[in-house]
Amino acid sequence: MIDLPDLAQVKAALRAQRIETPSWGYANSGTRFKVFPQAGVPRSPEEKIADAATVHRFTGAAPSVALHIPWDKVEDYGALARYARGLGVAIGAINTNVFQDNDYRLGSVTNPDPVIRRKATDHLLEAISIMDLTGSRDLKLWFSDGINYPGQDDIRDRQDRLAAALRQTYDRLGEDQRILLEYKLFEPAFYVTDLPDWGTSYAHCVELGERATVCIDTGHHAQGTNIEFIVAFLLRQNKLGAFDFNSRFYADDDLMVGAADPFQLFRIMNEIVRADALDPAYGINFMLDQCHNIEAKIPAIIRSVMNVQEATAKALLVDRDALREAQQEGKVLEANAVLMDAYNTDVRPLLAELRAEDGLDPDPIAAYHRSGYQQQIEAERAEGRQAGWGA
Amino acid sequence: MIDLPDLAQVKAALRAQRIETPSWGYANSGTRFKVFPQAGVPRSPEEKIADAATVHRFTGAAPSVALHIPWDKVEDYGALARYARGLGVAIGAINTNVFQDNDYRLGSVTNPDPVIRRKATDHLLEAISIMDLTGSRDLKLWFSDGINYPGQDDIRDRQDRLAAALRQTYDRLGEDQRILLEYKLFEPAFYVTDLPDWGTSYAHCVELGERATVCIDTGHHAQGTNIEFIVAFLLRQNKLGAFDFNSRFYADDDLMVGAADPFQLFRIMNEIVRADALDPAYGINFMLDQCHNIEAKIPAIIRSVMNVQEATAKALLVDRDALREAQQEGKVLEANAVLMDAYNTDVRPLLAELRAEDGLDPDPIAAYHRSGYQQQIEAERAEGRQAGWGA
Amino acid sequence: MIDLPDLAQVKAALRAQRIETPSWGYANSGTRFKVFPQAGVPRSPEEKIADAATVHRFTGAAPSVALHIPWDKVEDYGALARYARGLGVAIGAINTNVFQDNDYRLGSVTNPDPVIRRKATDHLLEAISIMDLTGSRDLKLWFSDGINYPGQDDIRDRQDRLAAALRQTYDRLGEDQRILLEYKLFEPAFYVTDLPDWGTSYAHCVELGERATVCIDTGHHAQGTNIEFIVAFLLRQNKLGAFDFNSRFYADDDLMVGAADPFQLFRIMNEIVRADALDPAYGINFMLDQCHNIEAKIPAIIRSVMNVQEATAKALLVDRDALREAQQEGKVLEANAVLMDAYNTDVRPLLAELRAEDGLDPDPIAAYHRSGYQQQIEAERAEGRQAGWGA
Amino acid sequence: MIDLPDLAQVKAALRAQRIETPSWGYANSGTRFKVFPQAGVPRSPEEKIADAATVHRFTGAAPSVALHIPWDKVEDYGALARYARGLGVAIGAINTNVFQDNDYRLGSVTNPDPVIRRKATDHLLEAISIMDLTGSRDLKLWFSDGINYPGQDDIRDRQDRLAAALRQTYDRLGEDQRILLEYKLFEPAFYVTDLPDWGTSYAHCVELGERATVCIDTGHHAQGTNIEFIVAFLLRQNKLGAFDFNSRFYADDDLMVGAADPFQLFRIMNEIVRADALDPAYGINFMLDQCHNIEAKIPAIIRSVMNVQEATAKALLVDRDALREAQQEGKVLEANAVLMDAYNTDVRPLLAELRAEDGLDPDPIAAYHRSGYQQQIEAERAEGRQAGWGA
Repeated sequence: MIDLPDLAQVKAALRAQRIETPSWGYANSGTRFKVFPQAGVPRSPEEKIADAATVHRFTGAAPSVALHIPWDKVEDYGALARYARGLGVAIGAINTNVFQDNDYRLGSVTNPDPVIRRKATDHLLEAISIMDLTGSRDLKLWFSDGINYPGQDDIRDRQDRLAAALRQTYDRLGEDQRILLEYKLFEPAFYVTDLPDWGTSYAHCVELGERATVCIDTGHHAQGTNIEFIVAFLLRQNKLGAFDFNSRFYADDDLMVGAADPFQLFRIMNEIVRADALDPAYGINFMLDQCHNIEAKIPAIIRSVMNVQEATAKALLVDRDALREAQQEGKVLEANAVLMDAYNTDVRPLLAELRAEDGLDPDPIAAYHRSGYQQQIEAERAEGRQAGWGA
Repeated sequence: MIDLPDLAQVKAALRAQRIETPSWGYANSGTRFKVFPQAGVPRSPEEKIADAATVHRFTGAAPSVALHIPWDKVEDYGALARYARGLGVAIGAINTNVFQDNDYRLGSVTNPDPVIRRKATDHLLEAISIMDLTGSRDLKLWFSDGINYPGQDDIRDRQDRLAAALRQTYDRLGEDQRILLEYKLFEPAFYVTDLPDWGTSYAHCVELGERATVCIDTGHHAQGTNIEFIVAFLLRQNKLGAFDFNSRFYADDDLMVGAADPFQLFRIMNEIVRADALDPAYGINFMLDQCHNIEAKIPAIIRSVMNVQEATAKALLVDRDALREAQQEGKVLEANAVLMDAYNTDVRPLLAELRAEDGLDPDPIAAYHRSGYQQQIEAERAEGRQAGWGA
Repeated sequence: MIDLPDLAQVKAALRAQRIETPSWGYANSGTRFKVFPQAGVPRSPEEKIADAATVHRFTGAAPSVALHIPWDKVEDYGALARYARGLGVAIGAINTNVFQDNDYRLGSVTNPDPVIRRKATDHLLEAISIMDLTGSRDLKLWFSDGINYPGQDDIRDRQDRLAAALRQTYDRLGEDQRILLEYKLFEPAFYVTDLPDWGTSYAHCVELGERATVCIDTGHHAQGTNIEFIVAFLLRQNKLGAFDFNSRFYADDDLMVGAADPFQLFRIMNEIVRADALDPAYGINFMLDQCHNIEAKIPAIIRSVMNVQEATAKALLVDRDALREAQQEGKVLEANAVLMDAYNTDVRPLLAELRAEDGLDPDPIAAYHRSGYQQQIEAERAEGRQAGWGA
Repeated sequence: MIDLPDLAQVKAALRAQRIETPSWGYANSGTRFKVFPQAGVPRSPEEKIADAATVHRFTGAAPSVALHIPWDKVEDYGALARYARGLGVAIGAINTNVFQDNDYRLGSVTNPDPVIRRKATDHLLEAISIMDLTGSRDLKLWFSDGINYPGQDDIRDRQDRLAAALRQTYDRLGEDQRILLEYKLFEPAFYVTDLPDWGTSYAHCVELGERATVCIDTGHHAQGTNIEFIVAFLLRQNKLGAFDFNSRFYADDDLMVGAADPFQLFRIMNEIVRADALDPAYGINFMLDQCHNIEAKIPAIIRSVMNVQEATAKALLVDRDALREAQQEGKVLEANAVLMDAYNTDVRPLLAELRAEDGLDPDPIAAYHRSGYQQQIEAERAEGRQAGWGA
């Protein structure tokens, strides 16, 4: 039902799209109640990278993998990067972890104890050293810091401590490196989270400088938050650095992106396309950050990559001229209809065609299942300790 | 149970406290389903001011009244200000209204039609002229602008239009005048609100300059938002200009402040006290913005002023040294207990004593009921059109 | 991408589908801040019915119109029903209104004053008399009753009063008549709503008897509520009587159904199809209950009917055998994929074909715009008072 | 400020109050991100019971302890009950656990696999056998069952399976035993939870019979849910069996009861007192269900017991006659003021006096710290495996 005068452009844009997958998404994860183990789960950073490379092999759209330190700690990061390149993928963002050491019970960089703050900040600096070795551009910072009870600590003092740690970290960045500063409404902190919303992250980033940008995790907002508004606003302010894609019905459910609200994902990608911010050259890192607690991990990640592609294809099909005209004339229903026309289009044939043209299987999930990879890893990785959040 | 070494200081702080009441709070209001009229409701700006002066007479803490233009439009604003002063109150913030004209169906300053944007912006400028006449310092800006359907208008274009209108308005401000920029999650817009959260308001204020500050309406957030965090953060950024106090269980219910969650109000006032921001000299305008749909209006406003006073008194009673010590040592329960000790204290005797010392009745509500004012206005205002949101 | 072995069955099911439109949806509506008037809006119950008949003429799927008493009060309801039948539509549910009289400030059937309770209950009984005249089967009961402040009234006493009024009403029902008991989280009551959730409505319906059933308004839940679960559960309990369809991002936004979350609407219709409850013979009344505050009313209602049809078509296309098999085998991703396959299908061509086969224009919106009806009503209805909430 | 004509009655009611503490509350717990271990945490069911007895020793109000099977599995439950009695406490509710076995990845009693359903149901039956040995009256059932993705399993089939398991369990109950059926909005299931709200639990309990009652966990609702309404409604329906007390700002935060919203706790206890349901003879089991992730466990539980006592004392101080009179007369502010008068009263002196009269230390927290118990358990329990979720 849609006029496709520039199908070639649409395909070109889809071909240029890059989605980064997370090493921890291949490993066991769960809720506080239970981590259900899965067969074939990787036992090492290298095996996680191999899985990521497999996802890229079947989708053609996931050429980098984010690491999580210390979950992916190795002796030789240069060797790890070479190993990845050998499998056809690059090391992407380096994620820090200052929430799983006993010292961090009352916070990491915002802890009232300066010794613990020092330890946490040193970990952030160490991550930049790893970036130097892996060639990573992005340092992703998520802090679980916060307090559980009113009065437990001073809200403002904690902001001062946070700002100090961020400043030290920012100053250590190389010229081509940058900070992606994530925010989250709650969990694991249950009263105050020190970086609870985009406004807090934005304000710190503005103070830090132009190489500090906001990372939007699509599952980290209060119910009712309009995420595409935040996307549009940060794009306008030139402060949108990355996405952590996932979906949720309730809190930070970390379900597959596009699974809970595919229309929301489309609206987000629509703002990206509207701002010409899809191309990797623009600089936004489109990452997945998900927990496949009960579903098969590699197929789930392939599905997630495809979901982002489908939402993007629909956004690319929006008739921008017709939309703008209806908007300018205040035609509410007509403008909405232009957007919905694109959303209601079945773009799966287009993406299948694109894949076929690029030498990929038009159905990446089926191709993965036929490939024997799953059987192989289940056999090979039967022994040893499965990687997981605490691993 | 609390040690009160500096009771004199506590009383001095309470004596200095100023709460501004809103002219529209004395008038009829309601929901979209029904406005229930009340007897004795004012029929003119002067009668609203008389009611506000009555609240101040019984509380001693509400010496100014905010106006809403055009609800409070008069021929001679200088005369209105003198009338107010004659009754012992000052004209406070001037509130603009760009949401009740048919032209604003698709927005005011963010409307796609430049003619309507011009009209809306002119209203904002007119409000500053009124401020010049009333001697008001604060221009309060709330925009109902937004869209109801995805695609209806361009999110980013609307931000550009908003920024342009704010810039013109800011540039018109006198040296001692300032903007209070309000935000609201939703209602009356149901998909995008152009100023939906504190971050958006903050970012615009930073771009405008130091005389633009954020106004926090305590009923304008998503469920689960930690308001006292926003208070503490904006204080740190020196961008907190005002409160619109009210309370809610669900959305923007506009109930009496402190009625729905008195502990939250205490936590908010605790951040104010912690930052030494209570004194009028600091510059925060503590306003009420409420709708007394079913309860008697003047007693409800007196009760609201008292609720803010009680929360403030409790915040002033927090043992800051003990709190800081427990916080520094990471004693979670002890720090929380210090805060709760103050909250659990019954401060009503203290406030009654303070009033008595100041020549006020210790029980303002009872004194109001005994005064005959209600009977008088019900008799005098029986004729004529009651003021209301559309009046 | 979907195998359609039973396309004839799908079409038959779609042809049988009935959606009831609300008389008040054709009239002016708004928020508490402003009602924006629209040209051509009906001035009488008859004109509302004419508009509803027009929607049916272009969609073929909206053969009945719900009335709201007293907004649609007429002298002769039999004549009104005949008038409707003459235009090709039937009078559907009768909606009561016990929220717009000054007496109902503190409640209607739950008011502490027995005189007001009597008056409210009498209105409910009167509505059944109207049903007798219009041949309506359904009495829809929505109560705005509740309290705004803790302590304002006794929660349990109000339940007793509610139960008493419902009992009297139920006992007055004719054999072929029934109660649709609506619930709502909040608004206009802001602390307790006396019928706040499906559980309360369900419990009262169980006590009343089998002719009392629950009406689900899709905009009346807390954020995060899984509505399709409620649908499935009430179907299992044989207590689902009706829907009030609309959509929302925040609270009871009353936007066009399917506009805010089309995937949710699909999931709801999926439960209906799964339970074989789509056919009118099953007895569920699929009604719209929306407010077209800023968009053109008749086209908005046509669009809403089409949105329900599209969601239904997708639900009918779910491969039930494949779904069940994947579910039984615990194949999480496969089962989800079966559902998503149907959702991702573009069903607009199928519905266009169906309409063409039935002698309708395949594009009802375009056909309406070409028909001249809008121009006609704007010309004819220029004089007189537009109908609206409270009119 | 409150008239206390029946202080003796208030004290008697407070003396009769019983709060059950949970064995798992004494053990290590955490979020999915991290479990922070604490010194002195129990290593066995016996040590948990010893801690519970300690809480009772200092509060005089916590004479029973709930067990969680299999976390508290022992060889000889009769011996365990005798051990508890020897320490002055009784074994309370038996909690089942069908969420931590690998088999339960896709559900326990609602699992599509009948073999797993059988296993889960058998565990429920086993728990009743344990109750026979411990003399417990209450079987608490919480199911983590649900699905994460639309289509993953059939919502209605799962209800049928749930009903079947509940029926078998109910039929196995002894005459003096009963089911407490808990519900929860989400977590660990993220799309559908099979028992998501009070309505679902209530409907199942009605079908089961009179020995099945609803358990309200105060942290298991959507934001904005009015919990005291549910309390009042279930009391009216005679189906309120128990509370799982805790508090939260966001989701199921499991903070100390009364910490997040003390006014809500007061309103809940107010409904209990209003219905004369406080006395143990009425049959409601007032349990704590909390996770002390970062704060000291035993002091946190003592504080929680005290918080419930304080909220109860305030509820007992409500002037019921004045309240009813103001309610009947429709005096909104006056009725609210009667309730708030009680809430604003500082009841700590009253409770301190009560404790002193009963031979307890007026300050249980200080007394605990002075007692040396904490130092003793930290020394004695240094070796061995600390108990925790999953231990």
